Amino acid sequence: MSKVLAINAGSSTLKWKLFNLPEETVVAEGMVDRLNLPASVFKLKLANGEKHDETRDNITNRQAAAMVLTRLKSLHILEHLHEIVGVGHRVVAGGEDFKDSAVITPDVLKKIQALSSYAPLHNPVQAYYIKTFQTLLPDAVQVAVFDTSLYTDMPQVNYMYSIPYEYYEKFGARKYGAHGTSHRYVAHRAAEILGKPFESLKIITLHLGSGSSITAFDHGHAIDTSMGFTPLAGVTMGTRSGDIDASLVAYLMKKLKITDVQDMIDILNQKSGLLGISELSPDQRDLEKVESTNPKAKLALDIFVNRVISYIGSYVAKLNGIDALIFTAGSGENGIEMRQKVADQLAYFGITVDPEKNNVRGKETRINQDNAPVDVLVVPTNEELMIVRDVERLGNVK
Amino acid sequence: MSKVLAINAGSSTLKWKLFNLPEETVVAEGMVDRLNLPASVFKLKLANGEKHDETRDNITNRQAAAMVLTRLKSLHILEHLHEIVGVGHRVVAGGEDFKDSAVITPDVLKKIQALSSYAPLHNPVQAYYIKTFQTLLPDAVQVAVFDTSLYTDMPQVNYMYSIPYEYYEKFGARKYGAHGTSHRYVAHRAAEILGKPFESLKIITLHLGSGSSITAFDHGHAIDTSMGFTPLAGVTMGTRSGDIDASLVAYLMKKLKITDVQDMIDILNQKSGLLGISELSPDQRDLEKVESTNPKAKLALDIFVNRVISYIGSYVAKLNGIDALIFTAGSGENGIEMRQKVADQLAYFGITVDPEKNNVRGKETRINQDNAPVDVLVVPTNEELMIVRDVERLGNVK
Repeated sequence: MSKVLAINAGSSTLKWKLFNLPEETVVAEGMVDRLNLPASVFKLKLANGEKHDETRDNITNRQAAAMVLTRLKSLHILEHLHEIVGVGHRVVAGGEDFKDSAVITPDVLKKIQALSSYAPLHNPVQAYYIKTFQTLLPDAVQVAVFDTSLYTDMPQVNYMYSIPYEYYEKFGARKYGAHGTSHRYVAHRAAEILGKPFESLKIITLHLGSGSSITAFDHGHAIDTSMGFTPLAGVTMGTRSGDIDASLVAYLMKKLKITDVQDMIDILNQKSGLLGISELSPDQRDLEKVESTNPKAKLALDIFVNRVISYIGSYVAKLNGIDALIFTAGSGENGIEMRQKVADQLAYFGITVDPEKNNVRGKETRINQDNAPVDVLVVPTNEELMIVRDVERLGNVK
Repeated sequence: MSKVLAINAGSSTLKWKLFNLPEETVVAEGMVDRLNLPASVFKLKLANGEKHDETRDNITNRQAAAMVLTRLKSLHILEHLHEIVGVGHRVVAGGEDFKDSAVITPDVLKKIQALSSYAPLHNPVQAYYIKTFQTLLPDAVQVAVFDTSLYTDMPQVNYMYSIPYEYYEKFGARKYGAHGTSHRYVAHRAAEILGKPFESLKIITLHLGSGSSITAFDHGHAIDTSMGFTPLAGVTMGTRSGDIDASLVAYLMKKLKITDVQDMIDILNQKSGLLGISELSPDQRDLEKVESTNPKAKLALDIFVNRVISYIGSYVAKLNGIDALIFTAGSGENGIEMRQKVADQLAYFGITVDPEKNNVRGKETRINQDNAPVDVLVVPTNEELMIVRDVERLGNVK
């Protein structure tokens, strides 16, 4: 039976899912964490829930890739490696060149490496796994699925910053977006659920997790997104500031006696957002537990909702309307209270939430009030399924 | 007859207007330009249109102030200096302390000086003129009118950035806004024109000039504004970038081999915006002249409209509705084509422009289509009149 492996490699983790074709069902999935560190963790879960975890020091990236395959064989999930007919790799930065996912060729691989300056923690390691799986599975087609390709056909008016034009031409300074695979999946899935052609709808998708982004789809095209040149921009996130006045970078460096601007950007990426405001946690669940007695926790949650509704309003304006609003990712799928607050503040747009329907976590559900003009849905994201579908589509595997 | 002088001092200019009380009519106005430079220019215009200009090298700030008074006497606009019963001074930064304009006391003056780090080019020189006019007009009441006080009662959820909370407590890192005197004037004036209580309305005011900002008023209170910690943030401006991904500051410094972060912020303030995109001019009128043949000029104008509608949508969401949209300042009062484009993209919100009514420059006019749900107005701004009214109100002069 044909199988496709979806690979989602981060700077120190390797997440993967193995799918059966043509059913697109998950037969096994797992993650290798703490790569190249003491006490690396290898986790594997079968479709029946059976778990096989092990801890070992300093698992390297190459070992991690090999372990996935050897464990799948020893557990008889695979009888032969050539059952895996394709591997799909998430790649963070695709620049302006990759307007769609791409079958790996030597030229494509070279371009992915050359785009490393846009995602220094991701593209190099993702390119490394592509090469590694080419060696381990020489007969499987390898496909790169870019977080950014969804956003390559945005109108220029939305992706350009109001800075000297030559910074765009010379240095690629523009909005690239992020979470594209997730937004693409839930937008298409929402149209399916609603039984309407994707190309007929104005949709706003809210990917709200530890990283959060919001995308506007106009009749099948992503026309704007809250993530910017990097994933620092947009709404308040777990540890990331989202949008700020850029002059604060200079002001705070002076006050904090920071000399390297990158150290300041690191603070905005790692110590800001919900964590920075609340001085407690980057996790909305932690903050919700104490918000009734902790004003800063409450403020952090309120600011998050505030920035989300601000972007929704902005995108309703840019779309000149809205047919459907989609919640996804950790907080979007599980944040019952947060979804209610967002809808309450957007009544003017016809956006509603029915408290009973909204009492749901991680399940495809239409949660708007009956007869409301805007459809509001929870759609759990599935980036790996999107990756596998791109392998099927572009790699001609069945 | 009692008179009040309104003083608007910039880093190298001194603008002024002299009003008659109680009519609040302008009897003379002028500007001293190129202060402390060769060929300083002193300009004065009387109510009848008569002009008295002179050029002289290196007019100092003190000389400029004295010249205004001596010329007004020599032209017999004033018979005695004590006819001037009050002087109102625009002050850019009022921090969180000044929630309203304030009669100058030694303590108020000290605070204005202490706020200089928020407006290093403005507060020190504005404090200097306060002291100078105290000496020149010892019997006149002096009142400071802050650009920021309108925004001191914004909800915390709107003025806070998603950065470590202590940066707000220790360094005052928050949104302060700008152009408050202008927004305040046109919002109140719009309510008067509409014959409705200001406190009953949801109003969005668009101050669109070489610097631009947008403010949302909810039942009499300014609840949010596009200007940030400094006037760099918000929509695209003549030479200012408005909102960008803060990580671009670090990225561009590296690419441009800039070592002082302030130099990068200066580029974002002085070489960006319409000028940066178009590579031609910061002035919308220049760009409109060539937009049919110059794609970058057209792009700059389109991005400007795009950012304006983006903020309007965001504020309609935050207000959960809108009763009136007000255009003011250079481009807002005169940009016929721009106003039409803004309205065309906001039809969903019930925002309209009647092309015939919209064919107007610099005149109080209601320009929405008949029976449209949102009132759209052009209201020429008048910061000096607002300053004079604050002198009357707080200084008890008549």
